[in-house]
Amino acid sequence: MTTSTTPAPVPFTARDFEARRARVVAAAAEAGLGGVLVAPGPDLVWLTGYRPTAITERLTLLVLTSDREPALLVPTLERPDAEAAEGTSSLDILDWPDGADPYRVAGTLLPSEGEFGVSDSAWALHLLGLQDQAPKSRYRALTRSLPMLRAVKDANELGRLAAAGAAADRTYTEVIRLRFAGRRETEVAADLAALLREFGHEQVDFTVVGSGPNGANPHHEAGERVIRPGDAVVLDFGGLMYGYGSDTTRTVCVGVPTPQVQRVHDIVRGAQQAAFEAVRPGVACQEIDRVARAFIAEAGYGERFIHRTGHGIGVTTHEPPYMVEGEEQPLVPGMCFSIEPGVYLTGRFGVRIEDIVTVTDEGGRRFNNTDHALQIVE
Amino acid sequence: MTTSTTPAPVPFTARDFEARRARVVAAAAEAGLGGVLVAPGPDLVWLTGYRPTAITERLTLLVLTSDREPALLVPTLERPDAEAAEGTSSLDILDWPDGADPYRVAGTLLPSEGEFGVSDSAWALHLLGLQDQAPKSRYRALTRSLPMLRAVKDANELGRLAAAGAAADRTYTEVIRLRFAGRRETEVAADLAALLREFGHEQVDFTVVGSGPNGANPHHEAGERVIRPGDAVVLDFGGLMYGYGSDTTRTVCVGVPTPQVQRVHDIVRGAQQAAFEAVRPGVACQEIDRVARAFIAEAGYGERFIHRTGHGIGVTTHEPPYMVEGEEQPLVPGMCFSIEPGVYLTGRFGVRIEDIVTVTDEGGRRFNNTDHALQIVE
Repeated sequence: MTTSTTPAPVPFTARDFEARRARVVAAAAEAGLGGVLVAPGPDLVWLTGYRPTAITERLTLLVLTSDREPALLVPTLERPDAEAAEGTSSLDILDWPDGADPYRVAGTLLPSEGEFGVSDSAWALHLLGLQDQAPKSRYRALTRSLPMLRAVKDANELGRLAAAGAAADRTYTEVIRLRFAGRRETEVAADLAALLREFGHEQVDFTVVGSGPNGANPHHEAGERVIRPGDAVVLDFGGLMYGYGSDTTRTVCVGVPTPQVQRVHDIVRGAQQAAFEAVRPGVACQEIDRVARAFIAEAGYGERFIHRTGHGIGVTTHEPPYMVEGEEQPLVPGMCFSIEPGVYLTGRFGVRIEDIVTVTDEGGRRFNNTDHALQIVE
Repeated sequence: MTTSTTPAPVPFTARDFEARRARVVAAAAEAGLGGVLVAPGPDLVWLTGYRPTAITERLTLLVLTSDREPALLVPTLERPDAEAAEGTSSLDILDWPDGADPYRVAGTLLPSEGEFGVSDSAWALHLLGLQDQAPKSRYRALTRSLPMLRAVKDANELGRLAAAGAAADRTYTEVIRLRFAGRRETEVAADLAALLREFGHEQVDFTVVGSGPNGANPHHEAGERVIRPGDAVVLDFGGLMYGYGSDTTRTVCVGVPTPQVQRVHDIVRGAQQAAFEAVRPGVACQEIDRVARAFIAEAGYGERFIHRTGHGIGVTTHEPPYMVEGEEQPLVPGMCFSIEPGVYLTGRFGVRIEDIVTVTDEGGRRFNNTDHALQIVE
């Protein structure tokens, strides 16, 4: 194959990060929140470009309120790292030394009452420290209070997601040329990881190789099982490229499939296509799930589709919006998420097909474009 | 060198995990807690052997109370993984499907009032979900409510920590034979990671290579700086072996040290030794910090020792007990922690020396035993 390389994206600028922080402050005010407390992890990366070396018991907290400039509180010994991050130049950086009470310092940055949004993955240790410091304040997880904060991607972000998707597609195209029969799942998983890196991923998050009965466990990663002729094999892999996620699944067959494998694959393929065709602005997220689920149920496998249809993707590989019953959020152009129906026959095999899709004014656009037909591998 | 391999430890048994859970229930009752809520991460690994593939927005929670059998709540699609873990066979495993309210299910496992301990790293999303479900309940982070829960290691755990320490020592012994001058920090860091893996680590957590001025930032990892003759280089590395942590630091010099590098190194070495000699049962953790700090202050560098003296280690590389001012917990035989004083001269160089130490009836015992003298490298 010709290896056309995707051009690197334009770097995010200090202004990009400032604009995101301003967007959060405005959205928080509109939602009646007194501010937003951001912990290390995807929210902090998105708002400051800062990714601490490790997420630990030492409090790091970005405080966004409407009545003062954004402030980043960090442990003293991590201050140089925080200052070096790409989006922190216009931030007020404060530090606290070992032995001091960081929650007391955080308290000086916040109104003592009111409701605050807080990063989902903030540690309970830190949330409880803040609650003790300001007993009259209340907190709501950001995916509950401002669920769509990072959901609509701008052009630069869409470009990165498209590049990550293209790299995942190249990985699939290469991996199906390799031998499956007689090798362990872990060996194929190592190939997937190496290919993702070769095609530009800086981080590999998961490389699922679920052969035969292992494919019937949707969260099986890769084990010591030796792949056999006749196996259906679920390949689900992804990671981060330019800081944005990839996540795609294809199910292949080692040699000629049995009629049942072919039939289940046809059903899952049809469900994935139907759900994709339902994507357009204004449609509720749960509707995407319902379309896929109805398709599989009509074919008689409704009980075997045991997870939601999809999840958002961006600086993480799992974030809102979720394509799940009960999620009434309407789709908006620029949202990006997976469509990944599956059927799992315990003790026998599983089939899943997954693409990342973005919403455009005209409908859905796929970031994964490899063939959906059941691929035969050796 | 002869490569004597450490024999693999005896596996933990279902009874080991049951005994740990019973210990938690008893400790919680004694502390006036209505129970303990354990999130994925080190607490859950220690209590069940279960390590979910990823820590996500889907709630996984181990509920330990005195009035019912331990229960593990997991997402439906992760149930097979939970059942396959080494210490879950005697647990009551419940699952919740996508679309259901996991906090409602968790509520059925808990008294609706009372105070509960909760894993430090439980997500705020989940803690807030539990708080909403049972507004009369109160929560305290486990390191605040039962800080010493995992602090005293049994013989099997001590054996694993000793093995991890010995592997880290072998890594140091090998790395100082390699060339430093003219190579990038990241290249030496890659050597450290490869050696840790070669000597048995299943996970590498950090490989700090802080050369010249980069050594003056205690949390610098490794960068693109090319190491030069005359540089002091801080090497701080560790990870997990048999599930237990290693963490050691030595500072080396590329060629002959300047008098100032030698002098600062002598001071840090003296401080480390003095703190080590202060270790014995009954001594408060803060006393270990005070001894190291006083030694460095008397030598005139008190302002340049900008972090605590140490942290506990076990199934994580950072846990209680902390050797820090204000920590009055007395040392108990079986506790394991780092002693790692340092001096940081901004813009010039840093020096840190770190060993993992365990408390015995007779005093401290080191799990790191490489020479403390300032090593000259090429």
